[in-house]
Amino acid sequence: MRIDVLTLFPEMCEGVFGTSILGKARDKGIVSLNAVNFRDFSGNKHNSVDDTPYGGGGGMVLKPDPIFAAVEHVLAETGPEASPGEAAISPLVKPRIILMCPQGQTYTQQIAEELAQEQHLIFICGHYEGYDERIREHLVTDELSIGDYVLTGGELPALTVIDSIVRLQPGALGNETSAVTDSFSTGLLEYPHYTRPAEFRGWKVPDMLLSGHHANIEVWRREQALQRTLERRPDLLETADLTAKDKQTLKRLQEQASLNEK
Amino acid sequence: MRIDVLTLFPEMCEGVFGTSILGKARDKGIVSLNAVNFRDFSGNKHNSVDDTPYGGGGGMVLKPDPIFAAVEHVLAETGPEASPGEAAISPLVKPRIILMCPQGQTYTQQIAEELAQEQHLIFICGHYEGYDERIREHLVTDELSIGDYVLTGGELPALTVIDSIVRLQPGALGNETSAVTDSFSTGLLEYPHYTRPAEFRGWKVPDMLLSGHHANIEVWRREQALQRTLERRPDLLETADLTAKDKQTLKRLQEQASLNEK
Repeated sequence: MRIDVLTLFPEMCEGVFGTSILGKARDKGIVSLNAVNFRDFSGNKHNSVDDTPYGGGGGMVLKPDPIFAAVEHVLAETGPEASPGEAAISPLVKPRIILMCPQGQTYTQQIAEELAQEQHLIFICGHYEGYDERIREHLVTDELSIGDYVLTGGELPALTVIDSIVRLQPGALGNETSAVTDSFSTGLLEYPHYTRPAEFRGWKVPDMLLSGHHANIEVWRREQALQRTLERRPDLLETADLTAKDKQTLKRLQEQASLNEK
Repeated sequence: MRIDVLTLFPEMCEGVFGTSILGKARDKGIVSLNAVNFRDFSGNKHNSVDDTPYGGGGGMVLKPDPIFAAVEHVLAETGPEASPGEAAISPLVKPRIILMCPQGQTYTQQIAEELAQEQHLIFICGHYEGYDERIREHLVTDELSIGDYVLTGGELPALTVIDSIVRLQPGALGNETSAVTDSFSTGLLEYPHYTRPAEFRGWKVPDMLLSGHHANIEVWRREQALQRTLERRPDLLETADLTAKDKQTLKRLQEQASLNEK
């Protein structure tokens, strides 16, 4: 898998690419991560990549030329005319070209799983500015937003999406990681975790977890996961994969909650 | 405003703290940004911060001791017993202690605006592991999730939240930034932006934007914003601040859309 990030702040991306799971996946050759400064493709002597908007109004708008030229540079590096060794990707592979923007589709684990199947992803990150609409209409294949909040640039969103995709690549995680982080893969929020010490500042680990009775512990954990999801994110229950027993448990938890309210 | 990030990857945070708006806000003295490695507070000779979960199961769980000790270290630095000069914050200020986790409340622009009023924020970032439940119950004031996808750590989410909060501080943005990024502040998605050249590879800027007729341009832009929101995020229309004229426009756009379907 190859991932290119078009940005005005390549050093921000490089710092994250070298750390933790991303750094290890790169070292193992699982993914190639490249930050491309599209200012290098400005095509003008002032290195300018933005300009004032047609029709007036505040702010600056990213020009189409540097972004198109930077994407085409990346495609040439990986395409049929690439020099041997440079091209790790078949010329038949069509990359996904992803614009990070607030107007995009809201990113979810389902999209992560879909993008994790691709061989080549190109992310375009704006900073402060808007994008010229022709980038949206004639260049990109996807527009993504990581959530409903305003950021100063697309770099942190792109890095977030990349982190979620790379960790799904076979071999990326290794044994240090586990299912405990996989809240959205199971469809329910996680049950509570406890580790040593058994008593910390007077607060004890629940007796159940010290009982050694694994079947009971499984039942307790499933009920805790259902209760937490019911309390915090009932919307997730609509799409979660629930057994008949789960549904019974939920009914009981809902009855208890409504009794407690009275 | 002071922001501390408790993490096992301080270099990942420092790289982002020094860049772009965050770097400038720090240089201007608008915000103090600190990465604290909670491994320094492990309290054991192996520097271990995690352990296996009580009750069995895969993965590791972050122990309560190092996290409590690191938070108390930060509080001592800013509290009544801090040496003069170290304490930029009144001892009467209660910090918000924010756990980044998938079980948290989904982060929105409204929460950003609320947190932007605080004087001291402490973020706790796990990595791979789960958190011992006693951290959640007895230490943190808030739990936040930036979206429904699985990541390898809390660092990118914490940095995302910090970016959205710092850009709201007076003086942080400067003139280079504009309302064009403020999709979620207006309640609608942005209208399309165009800049030079007027024709790029045969694709032209809409005539309206070249007309110079500002009143008509405003009407066109509002309609484009309404149309884009209607097509992509109709859920936002429920809470957007709409005029009577907007509602008329929306009705017309909806009628057009249903005609086009037939």
